[in-house]
This record gives sequence, structure tokens and C-alpha cells, in this order.
Amino acid sequence: MPRYALKIEYNGAPFAGWQRQADQPSVQAAIEAALAKLELRTHTIAAAGRTDAGVHARGQVAHCDMEKDWAPFRLMEALNHHLKPQPVAIVDAAEVDSDWHARFSAIERRYLFRLLIRRAPATMEAGHVWQVKHPLDTALMRDGAAHLIGHHDFTTFRSVMCQAKSPVKTLDKIEITRVETDAGVEIQFGLAARSFLHNQVRSIVGTLERVGAGSWTPEAVRDALEAKDRAACGPVCPPQGLYLMDVGYAGRVWTAHQ
Amino acid sequence: MPRYALKIEYNGAPFAGWQRQADQPSVQAAIEAALAKLELRTHTIAAAGRTDAGVHARGQVAHCDMEKDWAPFRLMEALNHHLKPQPVAIVDAAEVDSDWHARFSAIERRYLFRLLIRRAPATMEAGHVWQVKHPLDTALMRDGAAHLIGHHDFTTFRSVMCQAKSPVKTLDKIEITRVETDAGVEIQFGLAARSFLHNQVRSIVGTLERVGAGSWTPEAVRDALEAKDRAACGPVCPPQGLYLMDVGYAGRVWTAHQ
Repeated sequence: MPRYALKIEYNGAPFAGWQRQADQPSVQAAIEAALAKLELRTHTIAAAGRTDAGVHARGQVAHCDMEKDWAPFRLMEALNHHLKPQPVAIVDAAEVDSDWHARFSAIERRYLFRLLIRRAPATMEAGHVWQVKHPLDTALMRDGAAHLIGHHDFTTFRSVMCQAKSPVKTLDKIEITRVETDAGVEIQFGLAARSFLHNQVRSIVGTLERVGAGSWTPEAVRDALEAKDRAACGPVCPPQGLYLMDVGYAGRVWTAHQ
Repeated sequence: MPRYALKIEYNGAPFAGWQRQADQPSVQAAIEAALAKLELRTHTIAAAGRTDAGVHARGQVAHCDMEKDWAPFRLMEALNHHLKPQPVAIVDAAEVDSDWHARFSAIERRYLFRLLIRRAPATMEAGHVWQVKHPLDTALMRDGAAHLIGHHDFTTFRSVMCQAKSPVKTLDKIEITRVETDAGVEIQFGLAARSFLHNQVRSIVGTLERVGAGSWTPEAVRDALEAKDRAACGPVCPPQGLYLMDVGYAGRVWTAHQ
């Protein structure tokens, strides 16, 4: 059975998240249903990151096992045909070894969080950013973020629902960029790690927003981390500004079928 | 009766266009209904550009006459309150003289057209770009566009429904930019003129796309213009990539209430 890696883009708004659920639409179920149109049987796919309801992806990665030999480009085109009109698209596909695993072979995840500062309600960007109405100090947020970089116990910054065995993770990067857009000023948070805990990005961004607004000092972020206590976390920010951008693997996976 | 200028942003997708219509939702009717919540009577507002169904705006301008004296910021906030949850927002407001007119006082309109080149169906950008699957040569498109700059009879590039008295207009700018985005390569067309004919931007962009694809030569654009014949135009491109970005007036109107 040949195995294929799929790079997947989706607008998370209409979905209850990545993971298949009994009574609610999910991205996983949408892709599995499209696969069943190609090979009529039950398909179960595994993804690199199980994104929450409302979270988007530019570069989610999943793998599927097929009975037929599919040219990757044809597989991508056929899936996209059956995925329409849902806002899910396969943007690349590649054949991989039978022991390659979208989740367990991944060595890096990159997330983007988009925060829009503006007074008037967002129109075009609604559902794609977290909007706040007050100014934010990016220098303070960067100072706060610096305390989180590296190898730490992130108990404070993970959901009580998190199923990871250990709260200890290495956060490689938090890049905070101020971008002028047609809708207003966006603060973009770029985070990278081998893997993330459940709600880790939203817990970090929600806390850093409090720093940018001036109600937390940058040092309070260090204190919260050191408390190793979920109750010490700032507010968890909403999901609709979050994008799974890219998943990294050892060795080359994609050959640019886009 | 004090008069106010309103700068308006909207997502055109759910609307039959700017203009009020008997049985279909319009941006004009949405704003007039919000005004009626502030002063209970029939309101009629005039806009700088009557955008078609599906066309978006970042900087549409309209004016309204009020009975009460409103602080512009308060007027903007109150209208935005009543416009929710529709994707229409007042992004600036200013008091203007009683002879100031959003349409007749305007001396420049700027439009943006976003064309996305990509194979996989658009997810996040659906409804906000015109998607094509083939590469486009921007140098050829610029050569074609150069023939349209200046004072011309644009009969070829206007809808047969166009109500303008004269087809002669001065096109000040067509700037064609290639932008790498997370969704793929966008070709962005920036157009500026004192005023535009009905469907002029979409007729021009649709024709230039044919040049970029190699099926028209740049010189064929000049021939089409000189034909002064609607039948000589290339295909009119779809509305969802079009944005009314800005309207220019003599003198300062806005004082940045954003």
C-alpha cells in the first residue's frame, strides 16, 4: 500500500476542528470522505497537528495509505475535486516511505497568530484575526516573550485537557512583527517548536497581549512560567487568529506540485 | 442640518452591490437602516462609487445629513453598533460643508484588483480574489496597460449598461505588481482616475489577463481601445477581486478618527 503525504490548507471557520467527531463537521472527516470517493472503503488519516475549532491551516500535513498507485499530482487534483465547495484544499502531495508518519516523523511545527488592532469592527478579516481595540507595545511583548524561549516546563501555558505525557517542551522562536495592512496594524506572532502543547500558542499570545497592553510586566511572564500552574496564565486568546503554517521533516518531502 | 462624510469598508460578498434595491440586500440599505436607528426617518445617502454585486471596499465614501449635531466619532461608533453583524464598517467620519458631495466633489478614485495564480482551489481567499491556474507574464501585461493610460474614448472598456454621458475618461495609473503571499502569487492591479465607467476596471483587468496568458499581444489592447467597440473588449473578469480603496477630494476631509 503506497503512502502519501498531503499538505493541506483550510479555513477553520466552518469546522469543529481537525479531528473527526460524531456529529460535527471536521477537516479530517472532509478529507476522509474525499478519499472514499477515490477508493471506496473507510479511510483513517493522521495529521501533524490536531487544530482546534476555528483554527486555520496553510500547511497542515497528513498521510494516507492507498490501494492503487496514484501519481501524487493526480491524487491532489482528485481530492480537490471532491473537497469542493468546502474551504479545504490539498496544496501539495508526495509519495513517502511506509514508515513515514505525518505526526511522529515531524521535527518542527510553525504557527502564525494574527492580531488586528483597530477600532471599527473587522469586515474582510472577520474570522481570520483576533481583533483588539487598544494599542499594544511590541517592545514590551518581545521582552515578555524572551522569557519563554528555550527548554521549559510549560504547565502554565497548556490546557488542562492537554494529553501530552510531559509539559516540558523547547520553544525555538517567538517572532513578533508589526505589519501595516489595509485593515489596520497587525501584530503577527510567529512561533516554532518541535511540538506544542494543547492551547500553548493561544495561552502564550493571550498572555503577551496583556503585556503589550501594559497590564502585565514582561517579568510577570517569567513568574507565570516559573509558577508551573495553569491558574497563573493570562487569558487564552480566541482561535480565529491562529494558523498552522508549516510542518518540518528530516529530509525532503515535497517536490512542488503546486 | 449638519452633513457628515463617512469612510466605509465592506465585504461585498453578501450584497447585491452598493445601491439600494427593492428585494435584495445592499450596502446602501444597510447603512441607511443604521442611520434610521439614530434618527427615525427615511435616510438617503450618496456614495462616491456604486460598486457592483460582490465588489468590496476599503475606502468607499458616502455622505449623510443629520438633524442632530453628532460628534463624528460618536456617529461612527453608533453606526458600527447598529451595522453589526453585517460585514460593513464605518472606518472614519468627518463633518463637511453642506455643499460637499461624496460623489460630485470627488476628484480621484483608486481601485485594487487582486488576481491569485494557483492550482488548488482557494480556501481563505475565496470570494476575495479572482483565481486563475496558469502563469501570467507581468511584463507583457504592463506593456498592454501602457496603451490605456491617458485621455481616451473607453467605449470598448465600458458596460453597455453604463449611464455615463461620455465614454471619454482619463486613466491616470495602472500599476501591476507581483506579490508573493501565503496562498500563492498574487498579481495586484492598482488603478487610479478621476472617475471610472461602469465595468471599466473589470473590462481592463480581464483583457490584460489575456495579454499575460499570451493569447493577446500588448498591441491588441491598443487596437481594442481604438476600435471604440464594446465587442472588441476581452472577457470581463469576475467582481470578487475588486476593491474600491480610496476616494480623493480637494482639501482635507478626514481627521483620523480611526
